[in-house]
Amino acid sequence: MSAAKLFIDHSKEPLLAPATSYKPNLELYEKEWVPKIKAYNEKLSNAIPNEYLAPSTLLPDDLDATPFNAMGIPATVLDEKTLTITELNASEIAQKIAARELTASETILAFIKRATLAHQLTHCAMEILFDYGIKRAKVLDEYQAKTGHTVGPLHGVPLSLKEHYEFEGHVTHAGYVSLLDNVSEKFSLTSQLLYDSGAVFYIRTTEPQSLMHMDSINNITGRGRNPHKTTMSPGGSSSGEGAIIAMKGSPLGLGSDIGGSIRGPAAFNGVWGLKPSSKRISLIGSISAREDTTCEAIQAVLGPLSNSVDDLELFMKSYLAQRPWELDQQLFPLPWKEVPTPRASDLTIGFVYDDGVVKPHPPVIRALKEVEEKLKAAGVHIIKWDPHRVYDAVEIANAAYSSDGNSAVFDRLEKSGEPLAPLSEHYLQIGKGDKGLSSMELQYYTHSREVLRQEYLKLFNKRGVDFLITPTYVGTAPKPSTIKYWGYTSLWNIMDQTCVTFPSGVFGDKSTDFKDESYKARNVYEEHEYGIYDPEASDGLPVGLTLVGRRYTEEAALKAAKVVSDIISV
Amino acid sequence: MSAAKLFIDHSKEPLLAPATSYKPNLELYEKEWVPKIKAYNEKLSNAIPNEYLAPSTLLPDDLDATPFNAMGIPATVLDEKTLTITELNASEIAQKIAARELTASETILAFIKRATLAHQLTHCAMEILFDYGIKRAKVLDEYQAKTGHTVGPLHGVPLSLKEHYEFEGHVTHAGYVSLLDNVSEKFSLTSQLLYDSGAVFYIRTTEPQSLMHMDSINNITGRGRNPHKTTMSPGGSSSGEGAIIAMKGSPLGLGSDIGGSIRGPAAFNGVWGLKPSSKRISLIGSISAREDTTCEAIQAVLGPLSNSVDDLELFMKSYLAQRPWELDQQLFPLPWKEVPTPRASDLTIGFVYDDGVVKPHPPVIRALKEVEEKLKAAGVHIIKWDPHRVYDAVEIANAAYSSDGNSAVFDRLEKSGEPLAPLSEHYLQIGKGDKGLSSMELQYYTHSREVLRQEYLKLFNKRGVDFLITPTYVGTAPKPSTIKYWGYTSLWNIMDQTCVTFPSGVFGDKSTDFKDESYKARNVYEEHEYGIYDPEASDGLPVGLTLVGRRYTEEAALKAAKVVSDIISV
Repeated sequence: MSAAKLFIDHSKEPLLAPATSYKPNLELYEKEWVPKIKAYNEKLSNAIPNEYLAPSTLLPDDLDATPFNAMGIPATVLDEKTLTITELNASEIAQKIAARELTASETILAFIKRATLAHQLTHCAMEILFDYGIKRAKVLDEYQAKTGHTVGPLHGVPLSLKEHYEFEGHVTHAGYVSLLDNVSEKFSLTSQLLYDSGAVFYIRTTEPQSLMHMDSINNITGRGRNPHKTTMSPGGSSSGEGAIIAMKGSPLGLGSDIGGSIRGPAAFNGVWGLKPSSKRISLIGSISAREDTTCEAIQAVLGPLSNSVDDLELFMKSYLAQRPWELDQQLFPLPWKEVPTPRASDLTIGFVYDDGVVKPHPPVIRALKEVEEKLKAAGVHIIKWDPHRVYDAVEIANAAYSSDGNSAVFDRLEKSGEPLAPLSEHYLQIGKGDKGLSSMELQYYTHSREVLRQEYLKLFNKRGVDFLITPTYVGTAPKPSTIKYWGYTSLWNIMDQTCVTFPSGVFGDKSTDFKDESYKARNVYEEHEYGIYDPEASDGLPVGLTLVGRRYTEEAALKAAKVVSDIISV
Repeated sequence: MSAAKLFIDHSKEPLLAPATSYKPNLELYEKEWVPKIKAYNEKLSNAIPNEYLAPSTLLPDDLDATPFNAMGIPATVLDEKTLTITELNASEIAQKIAARELTASETILAFIKRATLAHQLTHCAMEILFDYGIKRAKVLDEYQAKTGHTVGPLHGVPLSLKEHYEFEGHVTHAGYVSLLDNVSEKFSLTSQLLYDSGAVFYIRTTEPQSLMHMDSINNITGRGRNPHKTTMSPGGSSSGEGAIIAMKGSPLGLGSDIGGSIRGPAAFNGVWGLKPSSKRISLIGSISAREDTTCEAIQAVLGPLSNSVDDLELFMKSYLAQRPWELDQQLFPLPWKEVPTPRASDLTIGFVYDDGVVKPHPPVIRALKEVEEKLKAAGVHIIKWDPHRVYDAVEIANAAYSSDGNSAVFDRLEKSGEPLAPLSEHYLQIGKGDKGLSSMELQYYTHSREVLRQEYLKLFNKRGVDFLITPTYVGTAPKPSTIKYWGYTSLWNIMDQTCVTFPSGVFGDKSTDFKDESYKARNVYEEHEYGIYDPEASDGLPVGLTLVGRRYTEEAALKAAKVVSDIISV
C-alpha cells in the first residue's frame, strides 16, 4: 500500500485482530442495570410533549423496518410560525433576537416542537430538557428587556449537546450503562462557556456505546435513525446531533470527533460539521472511557454541527471570545481571526478520489465530480491529490485508540456487564486490540505520526494546495452496524488538520450509481466496505464531502468552504 | 511532601534508583574512538587564532585548579575598537549595521577576537568556524552595499549555536562520541531561519554527554569552566553558551532546555536566557539521543541566551517573522505580538523562597529578598508563593526523561563504548532508570502532568498572579559534577510555562552568606543539595533568578522581566 509501511500488512492479514476478551455479565446486567435503563427511558418518554408529536397516520407502522424519508414531516405538521422560526439558522436567530424581532422564548418553543418530531422520527434524544430550556429562555428575555442588552453573541440560540458533556445536576453516561448513576456536579467547561454566551440548552443527544462507532447503537436508548431514510444509520458517534440538525430540531449542536464522529453524522444527515484542530475547544468535562490516563498519540476534539457554514463560524467566534485558554491549560491562546473571503480564483483545491485503501462508492465519486466541475467552471484551481500513506495513518490511529489494551473501556463495560454492540466488538479489535501498546510502541507510533504530519505539510507546500476536498466516508449513510473503515476521516485526526464537512448537493441515485460487481478489492478493508455498497439503500441519501484545511486554520477553512458552498449551490 | 503524591516517596527512599546497567567498552573506545576524539580536538585547536589569545602571564598556570575570575581579561587584552563593538548587545549591533555605522565584517572580527579569549578561558567552543563567519559577514556587507538593504532583522549579528543543531557539512555529535562521524547534510530548521534573517554563525558551543547534566562534561572536549571562577561549572546543558555570552564572546546564542539547560547556564554565568513554551521554536534538526520515537510527556524547547532582555525579544521577533509554523507542523501559528510595557504597579509577582523540596542556599535567598524589596519599593504587588506539588512535577519529569528505559542513550553510548561522566551515571538512574515506563505508566504520568498544569493555571488565576520570581537553582554555579536536583527549573518544563532567567545583580558573598550547619534536611534531595553549599566556592558568583510567566506568553514575560530588570538595576 505504501513504501513506508509500519507494522501490519492489512492486505495480507485479516481485517480484525484476535477477538476481544470482553465477556458480558448478563446476570448482573439484567438484575442491576436493566431496571435503571428502563427508568432512564421512562423519564425520557415522560419528557416528550405528546401534543407536538406527528400523528401516526403520517408514518409507517415501523420506522425501523420501512425506509421512510422523514424530512418532510415538519412542514406537514408544524404551524407556520414554528416553521418560520425553525427554518432560520443560528446566526439569523441570534441577529433577530438581538434586534428584538424574536424572543428567546418564542424561539425555544418553536425548536421544542420541531425537536419533538425529530426525536419521534429518529430517536435523537438521550435526555429531553424542554422545561429547562423554557426557563432559561425566559430569564434571557427578562434580562434583555431589563438591560437592553444580550448576555452574549449566542443570546437565545437553542443549542443541542451530545450527551457526554457534563450537565449540572444530570446524569452523564457517555453511552455506558455503568454510568447511569453518574450525576454531574457542573457543566463541562465548553458547555458552561456556551451557556455564558447565551445559548439555551434543551436537549442532549445520542451517541453509541463506547463513543467509538460510526453508528448509533447503545444499550440505553437503542439505535438512532437517519431522517432521510429511517432504516439507515445516522452515523456516529455524534449520532443524535446529525439527525436533529438535519430535521432542524436544533439550529446548532456540539459534537466531538476522534476518528470522524462529527464529520460522519454531518455527512450522513446532509448537514454541516466542523472538526477543528486540537487545543482550540476545551475537553474539560467531556466524559469518555478513561479518566486517569492520557494518550497524546491521538486526541479528541469538540466542534459544532449546523445547517450553515455561518453558524459554524458563529460558534467558533462566540466560543473563543470567552478566552477559554485562560481556564483550560490545554488550549492554545488563538483568538478568532477575521480573514477575508477568498475569490474562487484565489483557491487551489486538491481532490481526493481514492485514498489508496478503499475506493469510494459511486454516489460519492459522482458528487466529487460534480463539485469539481462546478468549482473549475467558477475559476477555482483544481489538482488531483495523490493519496499519501493513508493506511499508515489509519494504523497509527487504530493503535492509539486502544493503546491501553482497551482497559478503560473494559472498566466501564464490566461494571454493568452490558452486552457489546456489534461495532463495539469491531472497535475492541482494531489496532492491537486488547493487547494494547508497549511503551516503546506508543512512542514509536507517536513519532511516526509526527513524521507523517511533516510529510503532509511538505506535500501541501510542494503541491501548492491550501485545501482538499475529500469523501467523508466511502459512501452515503450506511445500514446500521456496518462501517468498519473510517480512514477518510481518521487520517485528519492523525494530521490534526481542520475539516469542514458540507452537503455536496448530490444524493444517491440508484438509476445511475451502479455497483461495479467486478471490482477487485485491494485489501480486506476494501473488500468489506466496497462490499456493503447497495444502490437501493443509498438511493435518496445525501452525500457529504469534507474540505480539509491546514492545521489551526479554522478561520480560512470556513471561508473557503463558504465559497465552495456558494458555487455549488448555484 | 504533598498530599497528592504519585509513586515514590523520595523522603524515605534513596535518592537514586538502582545503578544503571550501562557498561563502557573501553577497548572499543580506546581503539576506534579515542583517535577520532584526538582528531576532533586537533581541528578545534588548529582553528584557534593564536594571535588573539591572552598572554599566559595574565593567567594562572592551571585554570581548572585555581579559582580565577576571567571576566576582566577581555578589557585588559583587547584593542579599543574590539572592546567597543563587543560591549554592544545584539539589538544595538543590528541597529548599527542597518544604519551603516558598523559593518558585519568589523563586527564578526571583533567577536572572533573576544570568543577566542572566551574559549581560552572557559573551553566554551565545540567547533570554531571563524573563517566561515568572516566569509558570511563579507557576503552580507556586499549585499547591503549593493542593494541598500539588510537581508533581515539579524543582518550581521554574530550568533553562537549550541553544538547539537545540525550544521551543513559539519559533524553534529550532541556530546556523544559515537556521533563523531555524523556529518549533517543541512542546517537545523531554526538555524536556517536565523541564517536567513542575517545571523552570522562562527562558533558552536559545548554541551555535556547525553545533554542531560546541569553541567558541562563530555568525553570529546572535556569540561567547561565558569568565567566568573574557572574552577566552577558553567552549568548545562547549554554550557558553552552560558560561558561565551558572559564573556561577551557572543552577543546572542541559541540553547535548548528540557529540564533547565538554558536557565541553569544563564543563571550560573550571570546572563539572560529565555525558555519559551513549547511549539514556538522548531526542534527539527536538533540532534539528541532518540530519533525514532517521540515521548510527548516532556518536550525540549530551544531558546536564546544573551546579555540583555532586548536581545531575547529581538531573537523571538526575528525568528517568528519567518513564520516557522509553515515549515514545521509541530509549531503553533503564533506570530510575535507587540504588548505594552506594564507599569510597576500593574504587576503582581509571586516570590518563591522555597519549593518545598530543597531550600535555596543563602546567596539565593538574599538575592530574592533584595529583588523583592526593590520591586516592592517601586510599586510592584508582591505575594509569597506557596509551593504546589513540586516533588510530583519532578517525579513526572524524571520518569518521562527515561520513559524508554534509557535505551536511546544506551544506543548512542554503546556504539562507542565511551565511559560515563559522573552526572550521566546520575541521569541514568533518575525516574525509573533503565526500567523505563510501561505504556500505562507513561499515560498515567502524562495525565498527572495535565492535572498538575490545570492546578497551576487555577492557582495563578486564584492568587491573581501573572508572574513568579523563583530561584533558577538552589545556589550559584556549582562545583563540577555536583548538581542532582533541578526541580526549580524542570517544574516549568512540566508546566510548559515561559521562563526568563535574569541576573539578579547579587553575587555570592562569604562574609554574609553563612551556611546553616544545623539545618535538618527534609529529604534526600535536600540533604545532597543543601550539603554541597560552600560559601567560599560561591563567593563572587552571580545569582540568576527566573521570572516565570504563563504558558505561551513570551511577549508579556519579556516585558515584565524588562521592568523588573530596570527596577533592580537602579
